[in-house]
Amino acid sequence: MLPRMSRTEVLDSCRIVPAPALEDLRAFVFDAGALVTLDQRALPDTERWLQLSNMEAVAQAIETLAVRGAPAIGGAAAWGVALAARALANQDPLAVDLDDAIARLRRTRPTSVNLFFALDHMADVIAANAGGDAAALADTLESAAQEFCDADAKDCEAIGREGQALFEDGDVVLTICHTGALATCGQGTALGVLKSAQREGKRIRVIALETRPLLQGARLTAWECLKTGLDVRLVTDGMAAFALARLGVTKAIAGADRVAGNGDSANKIGTYGLAVACAHHNVPFYIAAPSSTFDVTLATGAEIPIEERAPSEITTPRGTAFAPANVAVWNPAFDVTPAALIAGIVCERGVWAPPFDVATRNRLMAG
Amino acid sequence: MLPRMSRTEVLDSCRIVPAPALEDLRAFVFDAGALVTLDQRALPDTERWLQLSNMEAVAQAIETLAVRGAPAIGGAAAWGVALAARALANQDPLAVDLDDAIARLRRTRPTSVNLFFALDHMADVIAANAGGDAAALADTLESAAQEFCDADAKDCEAIGREGQALFEDGDVVLTICHTGALATCGQGTALGVLKSAQREGKRIRVIALETRPLLQGARLTAWECLKTGLDVRLVTDGMAAFALARLGVTKAIAGADRVAGNGDSANKIGTYGLAVACAHHNVPFYIAAPSSTFDVTLATGAEIPIEERAPSEITTPRGTAFAPANVAVWNPAFDVTPAALIAGIVCERGVWAPPFDVATRNRLMAG
Repeated sequence: MLPRMSRTEVLDSCRIVPAPALEDLRAFVFDAGALVTLDQRALPDTERWLQLSNMEAVAQAIETLAVRGAPAIGGAAAWGVALAARALANQDPLAVDLDDAIARLRRTRPTSVNLFFALDHMADVIAANAGGDAAALADTLESAAQEFCDADAKDCEAIGREGQALFEDGDVVLTICHTGALATCGQGTALGVLKSAQREGKRIRVIALETRPLLQGARLTAWECLKTGLDVRLVTDGMAAFALARLGVTKAIAGADRVAGNGDSANKIGTYGLAVACAHHNVPFYIAAPSSTFDVTLATGAEIPIEERAPSEITTPRGTAFAPANVAVWNPAFDVTPAALIAGIVCERGVWAPPFDVATRNRLMAG
Repeated sequence: MLPRMSRTEVLDSCRIVPAPALEDLRAFVFDAGALVTLDQRALPDTERWLQLSNMEAVAQAIETLAVRGAPAIGGAAAWGVALAARALANQDPLAVDLDDAIARLRRTRPTSVNLFFALDHMADVIAANAGGDAAALADTLESAAQEFCDADAKDCEAIGREGQALFEDGDVVLTICHTGALATCGQGTALGVLKSAQREGKRIRVIALETRPLLQGARLTAWECLKTGLDVRLVTDGMAAFALARLGVTKAIAGADRVAGNGDSANKIGTYGLAVACAHHNVPFYIAAPSSTFDVTLATGAEIPIEERAPSEITTPRGTAFAPANVAVWNPAFDVTPAALIAGIVCERGVWAPPFDVATRNRLMAG
């Protein structure tokens, strides 16, 4: 096992490297035996890339939201397993066995079904290659991680293709949190849909909610829109309803961290309020997420566990005091939007729309 | 006229003084010829009181939100006129004539009807005392400012008395922005109602929305609740709807900056979204505001002008970068909640409730 270390000591010691040469913006790329990762904690001030060369660094990157967004977490975790296997093959003194590596990665974000999906997949690959040479296993797991990420990138393209058909030239679109390239292994989910619509020649104006407490909208969506040429205006979360009333909003789209069997969708806190405001204004509210986000073991959204995070995210964002230090807070990371408020859930095989029947869902999930 | 100065130079040069001895928390008190004012920009980190000894300092305090909240702005502006008269009586070289003083104060917050009400009242007092001795006029205006503030404090008590009847023991109450003592010349409006209910022996649990962009909920409501013994939990604005779904919220109450003739109410941005979420959950949403907030020159909320404030309030709150510096933003200071979403508007003479008939309104406004 690793020696006992502070929560981010390994991550903090990672080398800062130049931005990799990429055709399109991506959250990370595997290069020269390490996961070269945009440190999303440093945005929007600084575009900083870190060379994550071991599993613990990847785990801490996920835990601290240096890597975030459900599909990106899955992809990074898959690379974490590959890095753990390479450390074993290299007889690295800090190497941990692969069961421990998977257990460590599993603890990083308890609400992310994509994380478990990725780790289960890597565990299957390990089981199928048991008893062989450690270096060969590391090679196999690197290939498996790359294939896992490539599949997600293809899913993003397909979500974009299916979703863009729902949008029209001139749409003014509210979105929350961050669902772009930085959240996935490809172009993104909800924001990817808007990129695909724009590539089809439809002019889309994005209104991004800043998404307190962690400001993924302000820090990441605004940054990615500027970086990739999407028209964007930033508003606070409390402005969503008034934007619907006054800015001619025509649609809204968000991602999802987990979709229950009936279509109820867990996503970043604030999504439910956005959906309620859209319903009040008769504006369609869409979800875009890969079918791996569907969790049919949960009948409804009431069964989705809600992660509560540290009070300091509310009282002291980015190190600045916003509230008395001793005030009680409620800080759920997610909320649940009932299917009744959702006009359609876009996944890579199509759109699951009201009445959210099980047969259609199962068809969309069939790989 | 004053020499050309930077926007806060006069305010920044005001003396910091010890907290005045007060039985109940108040936003400011006139003492030894100056307006001793809690500098609300420094909360929640620091309880700092400033000695505002001239009109320009008061104007800058209003402009920079060192003093904020519609009724407190009115009271402070009244004191600003009195300070201008005293400067003239003292032949202060920086004195400006009273028309210029009133014009200067009028420009500080263009959406605050209470500001205009206070300044019109002081102008009337000046007109009724024209041609007399400058020192006597200054005395008269000091008395007028004190009476103006005392009347507001009495209004707060009356709003509390009328409003507390709407609340029950055990209520869990959402509120937005800050509507307590620091926003008025008395105990507050919406938060004052909850204080009055608590004094009646009803246990009230407050859930305060942080109220981006300027965080009056986090900085001021949370601080005032802790200071005055109200049970409070702080959440982000995007959590309001999920709090309604999961925290057993029974009621919501907010202040108002302007109430149109039909009951449509302008208040801090985010209020409309809160009201929409309450309607979705069948939770009554109340407004509490003095009848001076009623502006019957406006038929509906569509006629209420909406102040737009600086983008930096969204992108760089409290000096911390939250977003790319060059991103476009929309920053309306207020939104408008249609009367249809309001269960009652509490003023000092009673509750104006649906169907918001003109006869009841006029009776509540009759002084």
